[in-house]
Amino acid sequence: MVQLVGDERLDYLLAENLRIIQSPSVFSFSLDAVLLARFVYLPIQKGNIIDLCSGNGVIPLLLSPRTKAKIIGVEIQERLYDMAKRSIGYNKLEEQINIIHGDLKDMPKELGYNTFDVVTCNPPYFPVSETNIINEREHFAIARHEIYCTLEDCIRVSSQLVRPGGKVAFVHRPGRLLEMIELMRKYRVEPKRLRFVYPKLGKEANTILIEGTKDGKPDLKILPPLIVYEENGNYTEEVNEILYGKE
Amino acid sequence: MVQLVGDERLDYLLAENLRIIQSPSVFSFSLDAVLLARFVYLPIQKGNIIDLCSGNGVIPLLLSPRTKAKIIGVEIQERLYDMAKRSIGYNKLEEQINIIHGDLKDMPKELGYNTFDVVTCNPPYFPVSETNIINEREHFAIARHEIYCTLEDCIRVSSQLVRPGGKVAFVHRPGRLLEMIELMRKYRVEPKRLRFVYPKLGKEANTILIEGTKDGKPDLKILPPLIVYEENGNYTEEVNEILYGKE
Repeated sequence: MVQLVGDERLDYLLAENLRIIQSPSVFSFSLDAVLLARFVYLPIQKGNIIDLCSGNGVIPLLLSPRTKAKIIGVEIQERLYDMAKRSIGYNKLEEQINIIHGDLKDMPKELGYNTFDVVTCNPPYFPVSETNIINEREHFAIARHEIYCTLEDCIRVSSQLVRPGGKVAFVHRPGRLLEMIELMRKYRVEPKRLRFVYPKLGKEANTILIEGTKDGKPDLKILPPLIVYEENGNYTEEVNEILYGKE
Repeated sequence: MVQLVGDERLDYLLAENLRIIQSPSVFSFSLDAVLLARFVYLPIQKGNIIDLCSGNGVIPLLLSPRTKAKIIGVEIQERLYDMAKRSIGYNKLEEQINIIHGDLKDMPKELGYNTFDVVTCNPPYFPVSETNIINEREHFAIARHEIYCTLEDCIRVSSQLVRPGGKVAFVHRPGRLLEMIELMRKYRVEPKRLRFVYPKLGKEANTILIEGTKDGKPDLKILPPLIVYEENGNYTEEVNEILYGKE
């Protein structure tokens, strides 16, 4: 059993046969997090993975069936940390997943430099400006806006945490792509795999998935386009399988 | 009438109802050039456009029906320059298109800095190494390898030629994307539109189309994916229309 607080629900992660605590008034995971969890390279048998900006822990949960590596999730908001912690417990994954309540900027010092094989991060997408967060509740504002960490913080810390040759994967918006590429190279994470997510076949991309290798050689691949919806508004076969698993 | 030399043919540019001189032993235009000609922003009523690395003049020819602007093509190989010149004559486009035989690196001095509204360039794709051009004939080697101009030359000269606010568009390979982005920004051409060309829906991109604005503000759009072939090997509707025109 699991203790649910307020308007929390115990939602399904269908493809992985897991469940996750969500709350419409606090935080629900997005398709972007699900796509990042599927996109990133993973060691299968062993290793150390860390997920920054973990929210309610959706990425560590989704990674867990694909690897025997240990997974750490870091979340700065106590309310979300607490939801993640309870979800891990409900799924009996305490042996594999450890959620830390803290600031990602402290992690290299606390957990060690050049320590992880893989870093994932679904960061806040929007820069902070005085006007654009007025009407948001605090939990949403922190998850969506660069209040506690900037994009540069996320990339710098990811680079500090990952070992040379290790992978760092992000999901973000196309408008930030050039900045990301510059920052990744600045912090010695060479972009190697880039995948664009298009809502429909004839539409502009609205999401990017990018993975780099620390101290890797330049050799960028543009992966096949990921199309989310068919013309008729149904999910495409690929997204359907990512969300709900193979038939 | 037109004088054809050796194994030259007078091929059709069907979508535009034009014809172009090609030669299997010297140079034939590629799909990439056709896609770039369709991709680039064009002023409609007036202006000045310059195409660098013009080859047999395919891009100036393809641009001509879409604009009343004057178009200059620059080609360093005399043999290709001569083919381009005769094709322009055959199509009676001497009023609109002027082909220059020369080195693109001399053009800012000869034609003026900050002069053009639009620059297009389908540059040689491959760096020069001792081994990779041994077996190519000279004309192909020069068109494909960075023998007379590097990518940095193309981008620097494009930036010198274009006016502030003007557009510069290139076609290239994904493996050079990060270098292109760095060089464009170095020479004050801010990437604004990026389109990936995928041979089929489930395949990696093999071509990129990128357009920047001189002294533009950062705001990159990832345009809809351009898929070349259907599953059955036929051209997709979009490519069919680009190559052969609307039914």
